[in-house]
Amino acid sequence: MERRHRVVVVGAGFGGLATLRSLADAPIDVVLVDTNNFHTFQPLLYQVATAGLDSDDIAYPVRGIAARHGGGADVRLGRVVDVDLSGRRICFEDGPALEYDQLVLAAGAVTATYGIPGVEEHAFGLKQLSDSLALRAHVLRQFERVAVDRSLIEQGALTVVIGGGGPTGVELAGGLVELFDRVLARDFPTLDLRAARVVLVEPADRLLGSFAPRLSELARRTLASRRVEVVLGVGVAGTDGKVVELTDGRRIPMGTLVWTAGVKAGPLAECLAEQLGEGALTRGGRVVVEPDLSLPGHPEVFVIGDLAGATGDDGELLPQVAPVAMQGGEHVAQVIRASLDGRPGTPFRYHDKGSMATIGRHAAVAQLPNGVRLSGTAGWLSWLGLHLVMLVGFRNRVNVLVNWAWSYLTYDRASRLIVDVDEHPLEHPPGTSS
Amino acid sequence: MERRHRVVVVGAGFGGLATLRSLADAPIDVVLVDTNNFHTFQPLLYQVATAGLDSDDIAYPVRGIAARHGGGADVRLGRVVDVDLSGRRICFEDGPALEYDQLVLAAGAVTATYGIPGVEEHAFGLKQLSDSLALRAHVLRQFERVAVDRSLIEQGALTVVIGGGGPTGVELAGGLVELFDRVLARDFPTLDLRAARVVLVEPADRLLGSFAPRLSELARRTLASRRVEVVLGVGVAGTDGKVVELTDGRRIPMGTLVWTAGVKAGPLAECLAEQLGEGALTRGGRVVVEPDLSLPGHPEVFVIGDLAGATGDDGELLPQVAPVAMQGGEHVAQVIRASLDGRPGTPFRYHDKGSMATIGRHAAVAQLPNGVRLSGTAGWLSWLGLHLVMLVGFRNRVNVLVNWAWSYLTYDRASRLIVDVDEHPLEHPPGTSS
Repeated sequence: MERRHRVVVVGAGFGGLATLRSLADAPIDVVLVDTNNFHTFQPLLYQVATAGLDSDDIAYPVRGIAARHGGGADVRLGRVVDVDLSGRRICFEDGPALEYDQLVLAAGAVTATYGIPGVEEHAFGLKQLSDSLALRAHVLRQFERVAVDRSLIEQGALTVVIGGGGPTGVELAGGLVELFDRVLARDFPTLDLRAARVVLVEPADRLLGSFAPRLSELARRTLASRRVEVVLGVGVAGTDGKVVELTDGRRIPMGTLVWTAGVKAGPLAECLAEQLGEGALTRGGRVVVEPDLSLPGHPEVFVIGDLAGATGDDGELLPQVAPVAMQGGEHVAQVIRASLDGRPGTPFRYHDKGSMATIGRHAAVAQLPNGVRLSGTAGWLSWLGLHLVMLVGFRNRVNVLVNWAWSYLTYDRASRLIVDVDEHPLEHPPGTSS
Repeated sequence: MERRHRVVVVGAGFGGLATLRSLADAPIDVVLVDTNNFHTFQPLLYQVATAGLDSDDIAYPVRGIAARHGGGADVRLGRVVDVDLSGRRICFEDGPALEYDQLVLAAGAVTATYGIPGVEEHAFGLKQLSDSLALRAHVLRQFERVAVDRSLIEQGALTVVIGGGGPTGVELAGGLVELFDRVLARDFPTLDLRAARVVLVEPADRLLGSFAPRLSELARRTLASRRVEVVLGVGVAGTDGKVVELTDGRRIPMGTLVWTAGVKAGPLAECLAEQLGEGALTRGGRVVVEPDLSLPGHPEVFVIGDLAGATGDDGELLPQVAPVAMQGGEHVAQVIRASLDGRPGTPFRYHDKGSMATIGRHAAVAQLPNGVRLSGTAGWLSWLGLHLVMLVGFRNRVNVLVNWAWSYLTYDRASRLIVDVDEHPLEHPPGTSS
């Protein structure tokens, strides 16, 4: 039985899903591959970590997406450990390899800790749904521990240090102080919540380096007014899990360290580099691509999103953000369609639609490519609207709206649950008392 | 500093919360103790297991409840390992002991496996939120495994065996076939879903033993028409994790075993029995109580809900269901209030408000104490309404309604997520590919 032309898309993030949607009615077989059975709406991971939303508000089953928006694409759940370029197949940690005629690599980026001592061992990341759930449980557990033993406060149990003042760090910092001051202050009425410090550490001299300096300063002032301690021009030197040492020698006792200070292309980039040799990767470990986003020497392979070393008109690497991944996905779908007709691909051009970061209730910054800058309530409302529209699936939108409206009106966060989950038979009930 | 009269309530289930609410404005300190920081709406655990609802739809933070409905009760998170009756204090796995003037034990029941070989090691329970999440992930993972390797079907990978035909077993069976036939059939269009068997095993000669025989038969017929294989008069003899052996010698290859066939009073009953000596426990390990639900010889200690061996007018032990726990909680709150005024407690009388079990879309059975029996769509609508009203917290109700309406209209289940969560630093990202 001869099989149809098969396009394999690795990664169900923004890039992979955009590819899938844009290939929906092409006369080919499409297989979507991911380690998770759901798409994660990464821009809202911090809301799960700060108990504003729960898992299913920001995660959507990929099989549902593949059936409804992918024109009946197939799905393969598994961790890709190798791309065999000459054999035209991808290999999994478990199970048989999968052959492709064309391949789209959209596997994204992972957290980079730059070898700073102790960070990999002790810091929480914020790239995956499970990261957010683990961070939420950990932070809430610190408050429960302190409720039993106040002496832990002096050891910094309630202090959260965030390494990295980009959008993720800023949004998480703003979300945490709201959680502390609005919600946990009521949950723990006898605790002095001033002990719950949020320290945002950024080595550059301003937050949100990709935004206009005026918006950076606005973000800093807003965070500071909400009692986030913003430390600029100083980096994290290391940690032993109990104290974070900064590069200026300061030592901060803390209960939680979150690392949002860097990403690097995922491990598949290394696989490709081994086969392609020197010069295959850019700085940050991204994969060098042709103007049409195909792999040099392998026109049947495309790399998009955070994994791709695509450049803009200025020759600079494009930012590792969702719009670049989505536009890249739409572009390679067009190139694939063209190739089916024997036509060559066109070069990818990224259209900057602007950037946004929210700082909390009634405060966000946004800059649009036409020079328009929004901030305060206007910025916040556009942020809300954009994210509602972007969320995949009608049902998720309604739930997110309900949750947000509820949080807004009541200052409540219903998702502040500490849940330990493991596949466990009756013999090993989960430890829920730690 | 002298402390106020302190009532400690162990357990944030239906019984504990009813006690808390009924004590809300009493001039005493109330401390609510639980291993989890949330109340679990146990009757809907099966909906989380079958991907209809997600965690925060059926779990509500106890600190929010304590602040809002408990008149500012305090909360202590921790696992109670001992009750020191003579010292009037409870001891925790971690942290200092907690002294009480009056104590309400509402710690509930745990799954009983009756020593049947292999069940404790291999079966999933359905008593806790983490049970449901683990079961959901496990079942979905079997489908993903089969999508890669069809030969697993013959080994029964898609077969779920449920031990126990009470309300939990019946509702789970009905929920699973709906998940399989309505949702996963679309997610896995090339799989023959007839291989996804649901086998419900009940040693008695009918399902739902506490209901009228007519409703039992109706439930059996409805489940059978939705292709649940109902096996009556036969029990589970044992399992090796791959095959379930029944007491009639039948062997069923399976991928998942769920055990809903029995509960026993939680381990605190044993603690009390050690101090009270012979005759302290009833069959099923429940704690013998005085007519006012106090502990014999310890009028300052009360036991309610699944943990209590309270009896009805007929001298039979009361069923281990939510209404008994709630009415017990309200009752001991009245006895405690009376004791503050130096008045004696009155005997507890349980008022049966009826029972319900849902089988799926448009099908439920309900029997009311006045002899009214509902079934089909009428039973289902009353079931829906009752559970919406019972759910703690306005916000949860709205979300549950949105989720149910969405599931109903689209046959979709948005919560079919496989999430492994552990407290993990960056060093150990969660394995999501198994």
